[in-house]
Amino acid sequence: MKILFVFAHPEPRSLNGALRDVAIEELKAQGHEVRISDLYADGWKSEVDRADFPSLAPDGRFIPVAASKKAFDTNTLTDDVKAEIEKLLWADTLILQFPLWWFAMPAILKGWVDRVFAYGFAYGVGEHSDQRWGDRYGEGTLAGKRAMLVVTAGGWEEHYAPRGINGPIDDLLFPINHGILYYPGYDVLPPFVAYRVDRFDEAGFEPVAERLRERMRTLATTPTIRYRPQNGGDYLVPSMQLRPELSEPDATGFALHLNGAGAAG
Amino acid sequence: MKILFVFAHPEPRSLNGALRDVAIEELKAQGHEVRISDLYADGWKSEVDRADFPSLAPDGRFIPVAASKKAFDTNTLTDDVKAEIEKLLWADTLILQFPLWWFAMPAILKGWVDRVFAYGFAYGVGEHSDQRWGDRYGEGTLAGKRAMLVVTAGGWEEHYAPRGINGPIDDLLFPINHGILYYPGYDVLPPFVAYRVDRFDEAGFEPVAERLRERMRTLATTPTIRYRPQNGGDYLVPSMQLRPELSEPDATGFALHLNGAGAAG
Repeated sequence: MKILFVFAHPEPRSLNGALRDVAIEELKAQGHEVRISDLYADGWKSEVDRADFPSLAPDGRFIPVAASKKAFDTNTLTDDVKAEIEKLLWADTLILQFPLWWFAMPAILKGWVDRVFAYGFAYGVGEHSDQRWGDRYGEGTLAGKRAMLVVTAGGWEEHYAPRGINGPIDDLLFPINHGILYYPGYDVLPPFVAYRVDRFDEAGFEPVAERLRERMRTLATTPTIRYRPQNGGDYLVPSMQLRPELSEPDATGFALHLNGAGAAG
Repeated sequence: MKILFVFAHPEPRSLNGALRDVAIEELKAQGHEVRISDLYADGWKSEVDRADFPSLAPDGRFIPVAASKKAFDTNTLTDDVKAEIEKLLWADTLILQFPLWWFAMPAILKGWVDRVFAYGFAYGVGEHSDQRWGDRYGEGTLAGKRAMLVVTAGGWEEHYAPRGINGPIDDLLFPINHGILYYPGYDVLPPFVAYRVDRFDEAGFEPVAERLRERMRTLATTPTIRYRPQNGGDYLVPSMQLRPELSEPDATGFALHLNGAGAAG
C-alpha cells in the first residue's frame, strides 16, 4: 500500500516521536511505501489567510470559501498545499498522528486540514440541489481510501470511557473521524489511542508499541467504522435528518450515525 | 462587566467582522468594558513549539506539558501569552467568536488555546490524588467567570439538528464548551450560532444581528449550561465515571454530563 503519515508533534525525541518511528518501521517492514508530512519539521503554516491565495486582488474582500474554490479551480493554490493534495491523491491510506491537546488536534494539524482540504477537493464536491447534497460522507474525492488516527492523551483511559468525565473518546474524535475524514470520502478505521502518556517509562512503552505495530500490520483488514453514507438512503433530502424509523424516537448523539449493531468505533 | 472578546477571522469585512462589530457596539452600549484579542490582526502565533519557552535548554528534550508548567511557575512564558493570561484574569466574561471550519475552531484560535491555557493556569490546578482530581470542570483559576461562543457555520441548521448528518451542534461544540471552557472553571453560556452564512444578504443579516444583540444584552442573566461539576459528588474518584444511579444504565454520550432535566445547551 501507499501510505501518507502526517505527524504533528514538535519534539522528535518524544513519546509521539518514538511511536511514529515504531509505526513507520513496521509499515516499511510490511513492504508499504510511506511518505511523511512532519508538520513541525516542515515549518507548516497553520493559518488560513490572504497569503494562501496569491491570485486574490490585494484590495479584494477575502472570503475563505470563495477564495479556496477559485484557487482550486484555477490551480493557484500555494505550492505547500498543492504538495499535500498530491500526496493525499497518491496515498491509499492516510494516518494522522498527534497528541490530544484540549480534546482536539494541535493547531498546526488543524491548520493542515483548514488549508489542504480545499473547496472542490475535500468539500463542495458533486451536485448540490434539493435532491442531492453533494458527494460527501462516504463519497467524494478520497472515496475508496482508508484513514486512521494515532492519538496520545495525557489523561486516564477511564476518564475517556463511555461514562467518563471527559466524554467518550469516540465522541470526542467524531468531529475528526466523521467530519474531517469520512466527509471527503475516507473509510475510517477505529483510532489507536494511548493514554496517560505523561507517565510513560520504558516498561510501559513496549506493550503500547506492540499494540501499534499490530494496528499497522492490519491496516488493510481492520473493519472500518460503519458510518452511514449520506446518499445511501438513510437520510432525508435536503434536511439530511436520519430517517425516523432508523433509531429509537428519542435517540440522539453521534452514535446515531453508525450503521447498526455491528458498528465499530 | 469586563469582557474579553477573542476574534478569529482573517477578514474584517466579512460576516464575522460585521457580527463582531454588532456585538461590541451592543456591549459598549450596555456600559461594559470590552477588550479585544483580534488574533489575525495581532499576528497570533498558532504553534506550540520551543520558541514558546525561551528558558528551555537549547539541547533539552522539549516536553510541552513540563515546559508549560515550568514556564508558568517561573513567570517565563512569552510576552504574548502573558498578555492573554492577564486579559483572562481581568475579564469576568470571555467571548470566543469564530467560523466553524471542519466542525472545529480555526487553527489560529486552537493555537490561542494551546498556548495560553498553560499548566498551572488552566490545567494542572489543585490537588491531584486518588481522592481528588484537581480543580477542574467547574472549579479552577477561571471559576466564577462566564464564557460564551459566537459561531458561524456554512451549513444548514437542519444538518446540525439532533438527528442531522453533521451531528448535533451542541455535541460538536462539547469539546470546546466542556473541555476548554468549563474545564478551567468557566460557567458556559449556550452558544450563539448563525447558519448558512455563505448565503447571507442584507435582508438576512439584520435578524441574526438582532438575535446577537439580544444575547449580548443578556450575558449576565442567561442561564448557563448545567454541566456537572467534577467535585460535586456525581463522579466516582479516581475513575471519574458518572455514578451509575445518575442515569439510565445504558445511557452514553456527552449529554450524560448535563445535570438533570432543566439542562440547557
